[in-house]
Amino acid sequence: MSGDEVTSTLTGTGIGRGIAVGTVLRMPDPLPEPEATPSTLGPDAEKERARASLAATAAVIRHRGERAGGSAKDVLEAQAFMAEDPTLADDVAARIDGGSTAERAVFDAFAAFRDLLVSMGGYMGERATDLDDVSQRVVAHLRGVPAPGVPESDTPFVLVARDLAPADTALLDLEKVLALVTSEGGPTSHTAILAREKAIIAVVGVAGALSLADGTEVIVDAATGRVTLSPSDDERASAVDRAAADRAAASAPVGPGALADGTAVPLLANLGSSKGAADAVAKGAEGVGLFRTEFLFLDAETAPSVADQTAQYTALLEAFPGRKVVVRALDAGADKPLSFLNDSAEENPALGLRGLRALRANESVLRDQLTALAAADAATEADLWVMAPMVSTVEETRYFTQLARELGLKTAGVMVEVPSSALLADRILAVADFASIGTNDLTQYTLAADRLLGSVASFQDPWHPAVLKLVGEVGRAGAELGKPVGICGEAAADPLLAVVLVGLGATTLSMSPAALADVRSELARHTLDEARRFAALALSESSAVEARAAVTSAAAGT
Amino acid sequence: MSGDEVTSTLTGTGIGRGIAVGTVLRMPDPLPEPEATPSTLGPDAEKERARASLAATAAVIRHRGERAGGSAKDVLEAQAFMAEDPTLADDVAARIDGGSTAERAVFDAFAAFRDLLVSMGGYMGERATDLDDVSQRVVAHLRGVPAPGVPESDTPFVLVARDLAPADTALLDLEKVLALVTSEGGPTSHTAILAREKAIIAVVGVAGALSLADGTEVIVDAATGRVTLSPSDDERASAVDRAAADRAAASAPVGPGALADGTAVPLLANLGSSKGAADAVAKGAEGVGLFRTEFLFLDAETAPSVADQTAQYTALLEAFPGRKVVVRALDAGADKPLSFLNDSAEENPALGLRGLRALRANESVLRDQLTALAAADAATEADLWVMAPMVSTVEETRYFTQLARELGLKTAGVMVEVPSSALLADRILAVADFASIGTNDLTQYTLAADRLLGSVASFQDPWHPAVLKLVGEVGRAGAELGKPVGICGEAAADPLLAVVLVGLGATTLSMSPAALADVRSELARHTLDEARRFAALALSESSAVEARAAVTSAAAGT
Repeated sequence: MSGDEVTSTLTGTGIGRGIAVGTVLRMPDPLPEPEATPSTLGPDAEKERARASLAATAAVIRHRGERAGGSAKDVLEAQAFMAEDPTLADDVAARIDGGSTAERAVFDAFAAFRDLLVSMGGYMGERATDLDDVSQRVVAHLRGVPAPGVPESDTPFVLVARDLAPADTALLDLEKVLALVTSEGGPTSHTAILAREKAIIAVVGVAGALSLADGTEVIVDAATGRVTLSPSDDERASAVDRAAADRAAASAPVGPGALADGTAVPLLANLGSSKGAADAVAKGAEGVGLFRTEFLFLDAETAPSVADQTAQYTALLEAFPGRKVVVRALDAGADKPLSFLNDSAEENPALGLRGLRALRANESVLRDQLTALAAADAATEADLWVMAPMVSTVEETRYFTQLARELGLKTAGVMVEVPSSALLADRILAVADFASIGTNDLTQYTLAADRLLGSVASFQDPWHPAVLKLVGEVGRAGAELGKPVGICGEAAADPLLAVVLVGLGATTLSMSPAALADVRSELARHTLDEARRFAALALSESSAVEARAAVTSAAAGT
Repeated sequence: MSGDEVTSTLTGTGIGRGIAVGTVLRMPDPLPEPEATPSTLGPDAEKERARASLAATAAVIRHRGERAGGSAKDVLEAQAFMAEDPTLADDVAARIDGGSTAERAVFDAFAAFRDLLVSMGGYMGERATDLDDVSQRVVAHLRGVPAPGVPESDTPFVLVARDLAPADTALLDLEKVLALVTSEGGPTSHTAILAREKAIIAVVGVAGALSLADGTEVIVDAATGRVTLSPSDDERASAVDRAAADRAAASAPVGPGALADGTAVPLLANLGSSKGAADAVAKGAEGVGLFRTEFLFLDAETAPSVADQTAQYTALLEAFPGRKVVVRALDAGADKPLSFLNDSAEENPALGLRGLRALRANESVLRDQLTALAAADAATEADLWVMAPMVSTVEETRYFTQLARELGLKTAGVMVEVPSSALLADRILAVADFASIGTNDLTQYTLAADRLLGSVASFQDPWHPAVLKLVGEVGRAGAELGKPVGICGEAAADPLLAVVLVGLGATTLSMSPAALADVRSELARHTLDEARRFAALALSESSAVEARAAVTSAAAGT
């Protein structure tokens, strides 16, 4: 490619600050609809083909589920069940008796069932998509072509997709993915969260991303949110240099988080299991600000025993002797339902019986968890703090902190992720030992926009002055009462926003370990006075876009 | 019943202030499961019975839907479709061939399909309930017993139910209902809203309500939230006297809403169609604070024409010459989805593309509606104000008010029902001509608790200090900028809370016409200084219960 070729650029929301160069590999397009020509094989042969492909597809899906584990396993198990459903099989056979090919009979039978679901209204459309996926796989098997889904490649690639579902990401070979580009999703979509957790360079919500053909060379620049098509030699060389510099910086020795004037801002890690502890320490995490305990429960039919939990928590705490480790009680519900805690029929599970509400309705689960945490605390040298998810009232705060203290835990606090908790932060922090702000859910509820829904992704921006105002309420209450206020949402991983959050009163920041280096370096560039000035500036604006722009411009002038 | 018998009392949340005496009629219990005994009629006869009952049930459901109209029609049409589904019919026939009775075959086939839905996870359980309802109706028809559902009676009764679904209330003969008692639901559940709109005495969320047997005499006192079982003669006589006094007060002549010190607080009506206008005027409504336009769209496959809409809006405005009429642009989505505007696959429709978001994505619908409103305004003498539902940002406010002005409407404002809009009320009201606070949704989002979900109903209380704090933010911004701030949620219909809302800066209150008398009389008892003192008192408390108790106690002392 010559240096004077005209290049074109697509833009979206970058996740992190990295840059990558590679060739595009698209998530495959759906299969074309099978033709409605009559069968030439005769009904017996077609029925046998259909039976064999349905069974093979069920087996493949189930095998993928077992390989993936976790919540992906449940999704895939449900899909395998669809492929094995006798009512559907009967309908396929009846359509073959009517003269259809196996392909067309499968396509039509699944489509009829899908239409039934959709016509029943409400939320059926949700699983209709799963049914479509199974239908595509069966038809692909009948045709002997590759099943749609996550592409496989021997060489690294830039994955381009509409958006990644949890089931896709569970199966993705991340070693091969140089970068992710999606046409949908906002800065807190599943894809974005995956990208941050795994330190994958990503640009999400890129209009026009689906027009990229396989094999196109692109530069994916998360710092600017730009995807450059068919780059010039100069552009490519510059990107390769930046990527090398990033790698060098990432391996440099690290100190504790602090502002330019020396104000300490401990930088902590968000962890989803004790396996990530060593990596977090290597990246300079000064402790754990959010340890999610859902992994212990997701594969289980019932809650794990106190002994099992104690062993897991002990393994975690042993990795952080003398350090703070904040463990969040089980946060089930919304997009992470558990069959033994949550009601799957809720119309709006994000506004349902989730988090502490679900635990309180099943108090033995909470008691067991807190008992196991107290036992692990007694057996180790870490400084264990526990907190409750999805707290919306002072009364819930009192309930949780009293129970935690009764069971022997010395430091008990709450997540602030519901607007009411931020608005009454003075009364919440009079009861709790600390607060930790979950900016993802706080933004979702403050703007009343589902953080996983593409059509309202533009609302999901923690730079919104209304969200920052709520963070400021918590920060002020914390300062007045001398109680710590942490941030453990994705907002803390945005380097400049992290400075604003400190200006609003956050005393610690917790994030995916991959984000620590960039945040640490941005904090070191600004004083506390500057951080407060940036915060005031952001609060005075009318939108997230304007707030980000104003602070970015002010920071560039410092 | 003798006067010295021991009485017992159940308590819940009263809706309104009325009192009623009557005998209990329960929503029927579900049918027992059909026995799994082999058929004695033979498969041909059983199949014919099943076929006939499925067809008859579909016809009955469809007829009920046509009679009910509105959104109930869609729900019932979908149920009729389930009864006619050929896949289910095939499964029923196959089970009869296996030796089942028609009853058992229907029960098992529907149950298998239901289990399939539920096993697919997510939100399928939602429509599984509809499927159960159809199954029960078919089995009832086969047995020749009455179908479960809303009871029918020749004499008035106190209806006791778990909760009323929209489809039930659409079919209920309200003339016969003396009072409603439900075991589930909060003060803004469907049942509560229905009760307020129709001025039905109701107590919702009554633990133990389902233990009330048919024929039990009860006093239902909405003012205290008490249901008294088998009352004494004195209790009965006192209740009858109070009911008579209420009727007398309701027919007394009415003046404009005002505080004791003469501060005017215009009292407006919430209306769902122009039919209610005359009744609202008769009850002393000084205009319309919320005219919902959904009724024009609910039965339609596409939006109604500009001419049709103009005729409807003209009919409304003609009923209020010289008076303020606030019309809300179409608020589709969440629990009121429209097929041509909303995406039925959203996981959390309350946090989805609803209200102004959906209109903006379908701007021609909004333009047509505003054009029709401008034409109706030009043809009548009312003072027309228009407002957008579900506004969450300053940018959306600018979009809506600019479009409304461009189309010739002189007064354009926004609903404040999302926390972000209340938090940035100063910037919203710098753009909009007025704000109207929807307390139901504002409470739902502030506490992050679905207002239609029984398991989190306790959170749905507009007395919560966090909600009141947000109302106060809007009130303060309105006062500073000289812009009106109305309240059009259910909170305005709670007499004492209405006083608090005025203390927080509300300049008008809008409610179901049935609630006007009680609110007018409570306002007349308090000065503006008192209202502000009550507001400060409520804001200083830590919970809705404490805020209500503190103000109730303070008001009793005045």
